[in-house]
Amino acid sequence: MISLHELGRELGLSVHGNPEHVVSHLAPIESAGVSDLSFVVGLKYATALKNSKAGAVIIPAAMLDDAPGNLLVSANPYASYAKASWLLQAPRVPPAGIHSTALVHPEAQVAPTASIGPFCVIGPGVILEDSVVVGSHCTVGANSTIGQGSQLFAGVRIYHEVTLGKQCRVQSGAVLGSEGFGYAWADDSWSQIQQTGGVLIGDAVHIGANTTIDCGAIEPTVIEDGVILDNQIQIAHNVHIGRNTAIAGCVGIAGSTRIGNHCQIGGACNIVGHLVICDQVTINAASLVTRSINEQGRYGSGMPLQKEKTWRRSYVNLGKLENLFRRVRQLERQGNADASGADDSSAS
Amino acid sequence: MISLHELGRELGLSVHGNPEHVVSHLAPIESAGVSDLSFVVGLKYATALKNSKAGAVIIPAAMLDDAPGNLLVSANPYASYAKASWLLQAPRVPPAGIHSTALVHPEAQVAPTASIGPFCVIGPGVILEDSVVVGSHCTVGANSTIGQGSQLFAGVRIYHEVTLGKQCRVQSGAVLGSEGFGYAWADDSWSQIQQTGGVLIGDAVHIGANTTIDCGAIEPTVIEDGVILDNQIQIAHNVHIGRNTAIAGCVGIAGSTRIGNHCQIGGACNIVGHLVICDQVTINAASLVTRSINEQGRYGSGMPLQKEKTWRRSYVNLGKLENLFRRVRQLERQGNADASGADDSSAS
Amino acid sequence: MISLHELGRELGLSVHGNPEHVVSHLAPIESAGVSDLSFVVGLKYATALKNSKAGAVIIPAAMLDDAPGNLLVSANPYASYAKASWLLQAPRVPPAGIHSTALVHPEAQVAPTASIGPFCVIGPGVILEDSVVVGSHCTVGANSTIGQGSQLFAGVRIYHEVTLGKQCRVQSGAVLGSEGFGYAWADDSWSQIQQTGGVLIGDAVHIGANTTIDCGAIEPTVIEDGVILDNQIQIAHNVHIGRNTAIAGCVGIAGSTRIGNHCQIGGACNIVGHLVICDQVTINAASLVTRSINEQGRYGSGMPLQKEKTWRRSYVNLGKLENLFRRVRQLERQGNADASGADDSSAS
Repeated sequence: MISLHELGRELGLSVHGNPEHVVSHLAPIESAGVSDLSFVVGLKYATALKNSKAGAVIIPAAMLDDAPGNLLVSANPYASYAKASWLLQAPRVPPAGIHSTALVHPEAQVAPTASIGPFCVIGPGVILEDSVVVGSHCTVGANSTIGQGSQLFAGVRIYHEVTLGKQCRVQSGAVLGSEGFGYAWADDSWSQIQQTGGVLIGDAVHIGANTTIDCGAIEPTVIEDGVILDNQIQIAHNVHIGRNTAIAGCVGIAGSTRIGNHCQIGGACNIVGHLVICDQVTINAASLVTRSINEQGRYGSGMPLQKEKTWRRSYVNLGKLENLFRRVRQLERQGNADASGADDSSAS
Repeated sequence: MISLHELGRELGLSVHGNPEHVVSHLAPIESAGVSDLSFVVGLKYATALKNSKAGAVIIPAAMLDDAPGNLLVSANPYASYAKASWLLQAPRVPPAGIHSTALVHPEAQVAPTASIGPFCVIGPGVILEDSVVVGSHCTVGANSTIGQGSQLFAGVRIYHEVTLGKQCRVQSGAVLGSEGFGYAWADDSWSQIQQTGGVLIGDAVHIGANTTIDCGAIEPTVIEDGVILDNQIQIAHNVHIGRNTAIAGCVGIAGSTRIGNHCQIGGACNIVGHLVICDQVTINAASLVTRSINEQGRYGSGMPLQKEKTWRRSYVNLGKLENLFRRVRQLERQGNADASGADDSSAS
Repeated sequence: MISLHELGRELGLSVHGNPEHVVSHLAPIESAGVSDLSFVVGLKYATALKNSKAGAVIIPAAMLDDAPGNLLVSANPYASYAKASWLLQAPRVPPAGIHSTALVHPEAQVAPTASIGPFCVIGPGVILEDSVVVGSHCTVGANSTIGQGSQLFAGVRIYHEVTLGKQCRVQSGAVLGSEGFGYAWADDSWSQIQQTGGVLIGDAVHIGANTTIDCGAIEPTVIEDGVILDNQIQIAHNVHIGRNTAIAGCVGIAGSTRIGNHCQIGGACNIVGHLVICDQVTINAASLVTRSINEQGRYGSGMPLQKEKTWRRSYVNLGKLENLFRRVRQLERQGNADASGADDSSAS
């Protein structure tokens, strides 16, 4: 529960209407009630805004003139709404201190403000900085560091030599620093190459549930500041992901690939190894990336859904294209023979 | 070990042959021996049935006349076989009670018939109904409810505000209620929107190993009664999955997508966000769904395997289609010029 | 830290240069310094070898004449390098013994040389052979066996009736023996078939983080000796994977499919159920396999990335192919009518 006055002050927004009005929840503009805060991003939502019963709405300046009710004016309403979500409802944070069942190695350094949950195992040389929260059943391996204010939810597995920056957030089941998939073929079997590179993760990196990040072979796997990773992403050894890149669920990135800053990668993409993808590349869901990308922009390769019959014909037709190209060439030759001197601009 | 007489009574099936015969295991019709129970679904298996050494076979009525041995007649032999699998061998269920190492918050309500395994952490406001089984190393967060008879295998992570119905089954490593992937771009970084919607799961829902279901942003993510989810499925915030829908492994469903009742979604499909898929839609493996579906039926988009050379030609040819269309148009124009008045029914 | 003399003896390689020289780390040929060991696989790297400041380099015999510095000659430099990685730096192995917090069932058999970490739960009938290492928070279910020298990292879930061979390595979050996805449709709901087949895993099998392997329905799911599985792979019930096959991350293999020996399957492939894939098949990343393969070789089906506009045209064009085939047939008919007797070799 927060008054609009207080909300405006916290978010740095001007308040129009009743600054004493109190809101307690977030809601979409269509269903928001008198105690709800909502937002609209542009004129497209002008009618929704007029009809809304929301207790308050965050709007862009351009919508101010015509709007009824209690308003907060923001240059970026969606971002203001995101920040407001943390003011309206305090997130659950366990108290500082080490749970009596947790096992903390005597050579670990744990800040007094850090919280370590039940059944955790914290190894030698580990550093947990101020206000770190480690959920129940987590492991943090030897010489790993968790930066100030970072939170691990229950059951996160951190191997040795993993550095996580400040204000990171790691969901349950994520595994950081597992052994990279490095093998040499030796006569009649696979011979594993020991993986000793560790993982280096910047500040404000968010890592989804059951996402896996392998340690590097010799040099570390690197995730730069501000990267957001959804659930069930697989990041192989020595991948490097640039600042503020966002990756949706189920993406797989093979070894040593380097992804730029400010990229957005859709769900279920697969990116093969040893590629370089430049900054500001957007890749649509379910794409396969087999070559480096050196020009910013939007890319895709996934084939969208069709009715089964159409779909079967599509790939049958694709298989017959060789034949079709041959036939068209033949028709062109025939045409040229029939009418030599005809316009030939269509030749490939 | 169960006699056919008893089996028939439990399954509601008529027994032909020796009702005192005892079976102890399931086996395929080809390899079943005298102490095995098997099944056939139709006339296609008439020869296999005749040659079978099975101690008993569940058959459809249409196959009764001609069949030898001990038989149980069922309107749905495969479903009867499924039920029989639980009668032949009692599943492992730990005894009721709370293991001495488990941590149960004083404000949790645990039915006396519930079983809580070693090293579990059960939060405040949690309700565990009758006969619930919680395997070792599970966490159940604040205010979550596990309905009567549901079973969590070892290492399941349930966040706060998750409701699981009755007779559900959740395999190891599944994560329910992790934070949805909701972010606004704020000047120079991603700003997370707090996710407070929880998860609402119906009765008889089965959830596979390492499957993840994010909590909703404001409203809950919803899985209706009878849904079966295989391993490593990713379900984003505010997805809604209708009754009895079956989803195979490695599927990813992006935020706010609504899937109907009685759908079947093949392995490794990717479904983008904010779509609506109607009831009784079947989608083949590895398809990409980018649009809503409002007509029941079968759909697909995955390109099936080819030899590498053919495959390379296929996508090279696909890239040359622009050119081919142009050339065919040119040929058509030429043809029309050469022989004006010719049949033009082939124009696009 | 190891001298070249000792390294040569351990790896069975001849040493050229100073056998007393000591190396302590691995490094790529370009960046290796005086205390680093590197390798080159062939003449392609001759210049890099000449310019290298590496303390020692493993090379093929063919490169010996022209090479400077300290050298070890190997018939397979990459494999020698893999073996050297374990000699240069001893891997972390916890001491033998059962941690005081671990729960070991009185009917489990644990070798004195085995190591069981904190908060483990080891069930009845379990056998842990010599030198087995079980990381923290692992569960090993009833009657499962872990063979000599195998290592489970933290948080591995092994259900009952799972046999893991010798010298296996299982990364965190992997789940072995979860219930196979077997259901019969019964009137108005899914009826689960109890899965009792267990899992049978050979020697020297490596299993990646968060990979899942379901137990078989009646017979076991089988992974043969020497198979290497990357992270987040899903293996359904009764799959059979042959010797030394290597599978990259995010692959899904549906029920009862049988994969041969010495196959290599690229990341994010999806293989549908009940197929047979012969030995020595290589499948490119992100392929969909819908039919059995009975000829060794390379295969693929994934469509590679294009710019979004080109990509959209590609699949629009694919949808128009029916029309194009019709138009080309029409042109051919026209051509034949216009010039009967013309060469018809191009007809499909």
